[in-house]
Amino acid sequence: MAEKLSTEPYKGVRDFYPEDMAVQRHIFDTWSHTAESFGFERYDASVLEPSELYKSKGVENEELVNDQTYTFTDRGDREVTLRPEMTPTVARMIAGRHKELPFPARWYSIPNLFRYERSQRGRVREHWQLNCDLFGAEDQLAADVEMIALAYQSLINFGATEEMFSIRVNDRREMKEFYYSLGVIDEESITQVTRLNDRFHKIERAEYMEELRQIVPGAAEAILEFVEKSEQTENAVTKALNAIGINNVQIDRSLARGFDYYTGTIFEIFDNDPKNNRSMLGGGRYDDLTFLFGDERIGGVGFGMGDVTMRDFLETHDLLPNLKASASLIVVPTDTKFNLDGEKVAMAFRASGVSTLVDISNRKLGKKVTNAAHSGAGYLLVVGEDEIARDEFVLKNLADGTEISGSLTDLAKQIAS
Amino acid sequence: MAEKLSTEPYKGVRDFYPEDMAVQRHIFDTWSHTAESFGFERYDASVLEPSELYKSKGVENEELVNDQTYTFTDRGDREVTLRPEMTPTVARMIAGRHKELPFPARWYSIPNLFRYERSQRGRVREHWQLNCDLFGAEDQLAADVEMIALAYQSLINFGATEEMFSIRVNDRREMKEFYYSLGVIDEESITQVTRLNDRFHKIERAEYMEELRQIVPGAAEAILEFVEKSEQTENAVTKALNAIGINNVQIDRSLARGFDYYTGTIFEIFDNDPKNNRSMLGGGRYDDLTFLFGDERIGGVGFGMGDVTMRDFLETHDLLPNLKASASLIVVPTDTKFNLDGEKVAMAFRASGVSTLVDISNRKLGKKVTNAAHSGAGYLLVVGEDEIARDEFVLKNLADGTEISGSLTDLAKQIAS
Repeated sequence: MAEKLSTEPYKGVRDFYPEDMAVQRHIFDTWSHTAESFGFERYDASVLEPSELYKSKGVENEELVNDQTYTFTDRGDREVTLRPEMTPTVARMIAGRHKELPFPARWYSIPNLFRYERSQRGRVREHWQLNCDLFGAEDQLAADVEMIALAYQSLINFGATEEMFSIRVNDRREMKEFYYSLGVIDEESITQVTRLNDRFHKIERAEYMEELRQIVPGAAEAILEFVEKSEQTENAVTKALNAIGINNVQIDRSLARGFDYYTGTIFEIFDNDPKNNRSMLGGGRYDDLTFLFGDERIGGVGFGMGDVTMRDFLETHDLLPNLKASASLIVVPTDTKFNLDGEKVAMAFRASGVSTLVDISNRKLGKKVTNAAHSGAGYLLVVGEDEIARDEFVLKNLADGTEISGSLTDLAKQIAS
Repeated sequence: MAEKLSTEPYKGVRDFYPEDMAVQRHIFDTWSHTAESFGFERYDASVLEPSELYKSKGVENEELVNDQTYTFTDRGDREVTLRPEMTPTVARMIAGRHKELPFPARWYSIPNLFRYERSQRGRVREHWQLNCDLFGAEDQLAADVEMIALAYQSLINFGATEEMFSIRVNDRREMKEFYYSLGVIDEESITQVTRLNDRFHKIERAEYMEELRQIVPGAAEAILEFVEKSEQTENAVTKALNAIGINNVQIDRSLARGFDYYTGTIFEIFDNDPKNNRSMLGGGRYDDLTFLFGDERIGGVGFGMGDVTMRDFLETHDLLPNLKASASLIVVPTDTKFNLDGEKVAMAFRASGVSTLVDISNRKLGKKVTNAAHSGAGYLLVVGEDEIARDEFVLKNLADGTEISGSLTDLAKQIAS
């Protein structure tokens, strides 16, 4: 006998059986509904991209490209990468048609992304992400505010309240101005301080100060104060968010974000629950990215929000609804010899817009009726010799147990109404 | 200056700009609506699969595995393939949980699939497919009929009529019985005849007969007659389809289908338009596939239907609706200094379920109003100094030009009703 094949998926990726797929679709549907409620249009692209897209200056993230991508050479000797993030793709597409596209352009997508890294909670190798981007708005403040409002609203639309999460905002330009005011002007020191700040909430104060003093001996105290007092300060973005009714927002001067391409506002949303206290979403403004593809600079602001962290958030806060999917009507043949009659009856109901499942199993009639009652379907209709002979059927309402008789057309109207 | 990056996608794959994505979503939505109207549940899996999944006997398709897959070795030295078809994946998943799953199981998915082949019309290297499968039904006839009815209904739900397409049915068991009755019993000859039959409609009669006589000298005339008279015959599946109201169905004894795993009924749907006369959809019964993963044989019947051929069909028969997407309401600030007020107003409408886009561009007021009128949106609302001061706004119905005034709450109710 030949050796049996494994039923496991490839390492680090997930199978979505129907019950998991129902959760996934609830997440995707809420995301797309929210994005469209802001007038965003959906786009998509292939998961395969030329590897050079992730190697150019401005996109480059050394660790990512060298160690964490799925990159291979195809049969035509081209180097190709499974996309690890969507922003380079959307910048490529916007740059490719910048002459025809109307701006501001509001685009969203729900791509799958791949990273080769050790699997841990929230760190599978393939995940899906809501990506929203707003390109070419001259009014950067309004654009930044709208993007954060969209991120906020997507959580609200899942049933979250403001107490459950907080929005943290920083600004790369403001940070640079602050460093300049302290006489810290060389790029290398600023980069090192930025990286250290990214660890501010994860390390001890003493350790932070020791490292900070090594980088910028004369400015360490001032920087610490600036970071520590973040929450008592505001900027134009946080003030505008308050003004439009979003209150769970604060400045966080330690916020760094990993991608080198951000040029202005950056933001993250954190789960407030101590059991799941982590960043759920991040984004920011990148004004130079399309310049990689041509002479045009089309400023953008965007964010990405992952399915794994989203599901963790929904489970942590008990926000997942009952997602039992089912047809509206179950047709139950009294015997398998009436299965094809059942299929014919089902066609009539579907023509009236009623989703209909035919139980063509070999189970006993009583078992089939019980299964239908537990399926989540609204109605049950039995098909047997009498019903077929008289061309009259009995429709049972599974919620209240009531029954009505009639022709298929009458009964279909009854359900559809 | 650094060299500019290309804005082209990777060779053989497609970018979906919003207008193409709208068509794609119309196709996907119609597919999923149809599958769910039959009680099918959605599942999904990663595009990455262990390469061994496509190399085992029963799934194997030599040309496919050796020359037409995207296969590479990952950083952990595993051989991995971008799935070229979905059936091995769904068989793997069904086999993996066959003890817990309720049968019959009706599953569908809309995966992207990769094949490395020369690009030509309808033959891009990545395409999406509706995959529907029904597993574990003892009543194979009812299951086969239901699957073909589902394929049929999906085209009807796009607005097609029976005249636009035809369903061709064959049966591997019936073909085998026929060959046996002629004394043709060796597998090799049967395989060769099957492959030749697959070309029956594409080559000249004389060429067909010459090759046929070389394979089975004594049975050639009988096979030709059997194939030629296909349309005047029926079998249990075509009779049952007629009985449930599907008439554009015929036996086609030349129908072969490429995959070795089919064991019974096989079927294809052809476009009847001479401009696009091709197979749009194919499927069949495979009863041995789950046996590759364990000792259980769970029979299945399924089909796959591609997005590229589907779009060609819809365009050929002029079945694509106007898919202009837009927000319901466009908010137009009289000046950019009221952009943030516009964002605030928009939040109020969205809270009432009204999708709302704020025009934060630098365009002149008149131009913004004209753009809104052409956007496909239903309503327009101007936000300026007076409106903000009085907290009273004017909502313009873009379809009939009527206007009403009121508070934001009143106006939101007006649109939502």
